Amino acid sequence: MKKFINRPERMAAESLEGFVAVHDGLVCFGEGQKFVCRKTLVPGKVGLISGGGAGHEPLHTGFIGRGMLDAACTGHIFTSPTPDQIVAAIRHVDTGAGCLLIVKNYDGDVMNFEMAAEMVAGQHRVETVIVGDDVAGRSLRSSGRRGVAGTLVIERLLGAMAESGADLEKLKAFADRIAPRIRSMGVALNGAILPATEIATFILGPDEMEVGVGIHGEPGRARATFADAESIIGMLADAIMADLPQAGHDNTLLFVNGFGATPPAELYLAYHIARARLEQSGVVIGRSLTGTYVTSLDTAGLSLTVALMDDEMTALWDQELETPALRWSAAHG
Amino acid sequence: MKKFINRPERMAAESLEGFVAVHDGLVCFGEGQKFVCRKTLVPGKVGLISGGGAGHEPLHTGFIGRGMLDAACTGHIFTSPTPDQIVAAIRHVDTGAGCLLIVKNYDGDVMNFEMAAEMVAGQHRVETVIVGDDVAGRSLRSSGRRGVAGTLVIERLLGAMAESGADLEKLKAFADRIAPRIRSMGVALNGAILPATEIATFILGPDEMEVGVGIHGEPGRARATFADAESIIGMLADAIMADLPQAGHDNTLLFVNGFGATPPAELYLAYHIARARLEQSGVVIGRSLTGTYVTSLDTAGLSLTVALMDDEMTALWDQELETPALRWSAAHG
Repeated sequence: MKKFINRPERMAAESLEGFVAVHDGLVCFGEGQKFVCRKTLVPGKVGLISGGGAGHEPLHTGFIGRGMLDAACTGHIFTSPTPDQIVAAIRHVDTGAGCLLIVKNYDGDVMNFEMAAEMVAGQHRVETVIVGDDVAGRSLRSSGRRGVAGTLVIERLLGAMAESGADLEKLKAFADRIAPRIRSMGVALNGAILPATEIATFILGPDEMEVGVGIHGEPGRARATFADAESIIGMLADAIMADLPQAGHDNTLLFVNGFGATPPAELYLAYHIARARLEQSGVVIGRSLTGTYVTSLDTAGLSLTVALMDDEMTALWDQELETPALRWSAAHG
Repeated sequence: MKKFINRPERMAAESLEGFVAVHDGLVCFGEGQKFVCRKTLVPGKVGLISGGGAGHEPLHTGFIGRGMLDAACTGHIFTSPTPDQIVAAIRHVDTGAGCLLIVKNYDGDVMNFEMAAEMVAGQHRVETVIVGDDVAGRSLRSSGRRGVAGTLVIERLLGAMAESGADLEKLKAFADRIAPRIRSMGVALNGAILPATEIATFILGPDEMEVGVGIHGEPGRARATFADAESIIGMLADAIMADLPQAGHDNTLLFVNGFGATPPAELYLAYHIARARLEQSGVVIGRSLTGTYVTSLDTAGLSLTVALMDDEMTALWDQELETPALRWSAAHG
């Protein structure tokens, strides 16, 4: 196992310390390093909290800042944060308008975020949004669909809406409305090595790929023979579009996400192919994002996310955004 | 070879088409797709042009925009752009104040940029900055030191100065002054596979690493036994500091750059270690950057860059910046 780490059990903590130090203009550690939060909270705004296992960076800490999250709780590698961490984050970011928890649909995460919400019941108003954007199928780690790269889109849109002053009920209703409009699917060319055990999440032959893979290396739809980018990306795009509503394709967001070991040159090439494929079937791409945002340690692979945007979603996407991993001015288009 | 590509000979072009489509709010293709440039030029500003082989994305096209480059020319994988491409870029971006060419020190690049400058002599005022920030040693591809990740720092500082209205002579003199203050060194854990030949740039054993590697997989200082992050990062930091002036360590920029297949979690961990190591020896870190910015296809590895900043350099670094790969508002700190 060749990775830039010291002791495996310290990997998540040392990485997080580096992250906070690099971005200390925007974020800081909360009490006892249980969570990372904005340096300056906005009083009266609903607090947005997300979190999950380490190994998916820059998700979620990289999305803390104006127009996105207020705090994020990070567990050990591929392990949920504890309820204690989440409670500390809730207590810190609730400035009176309550908190919205954004949770990827994995049993461990769902359970711990639920437990935290129960622990603060009566003291803080809390709503929870469970994200399950993966079309690939059910997971070993969850009932229902897994939350993968589409989580970024949900966090951004809810973050922008919260920044504009929406209350907790409005945010929750909006999340329920947009969730069916955001779908993702991924493919891996190799598995990651887990630092603690030095065991691969899965092992592929030189001509194999894992189609529909999750962000913890969970199996997806099929182990398939490796092919050219046109075929792979076309397959992902078709599977996603088959799962989305058949209307509202006139302004979509196309997001190509790298899993950690796929370089920018390949991600841009994949975007080029995905865009052409979608346009051939009448989809109009209005907004685009390409980069390494929701990772699975050093997995080589990528996912596509398609979001069917409406005017409200587009206006929220375009609002000013300033986080460690994503930034743009309001003029963004 | 498992990569997201179609035909290897089309990889660079298809990737570039994807890049321009994703970032079409900021950049566009120039004449005949010979170069990529800002959508809107600033009349009377010195035009900054860089370029080089493909396979190093987001360098250089990702750094086109307000506060950095005006245009970039991309060749085939690890191959210089042609003089014809560079001439077209010069003709486009020179709005009267002349052009500054920023060239990494590789024989092919230096030759083609020189030839382009000669081809426009008498029509356009052109100055050239050759970047050689790599402390690892001499290269097979160049006389003198190679230009690696420090190129980003040079492009940013010169770009900010040009944006502030500096003339060509002032920019050239500033580049000569800051060049000795910016130094880099890298290490690779595996080589990249070249798409056209399916041959690895180098092959390492399971316990080996290539210390001082260049961004085309050129050998560096030594092939060494793999070690923990503390040892590897410490070695890089020490080599860099030994090569820098012994004064002016009170406000340094520390930049950790991924080579393409090393995920954010490891880069942040490396930053954490590098920072601690530098601080132990009395260096004060004033500015930080961590990410995958200067790549070598899908090489696993990273480089450290240290820049000894003075007040002028820091003020330029902090200016408003808006490019596809790097953005911040003037309030950045």
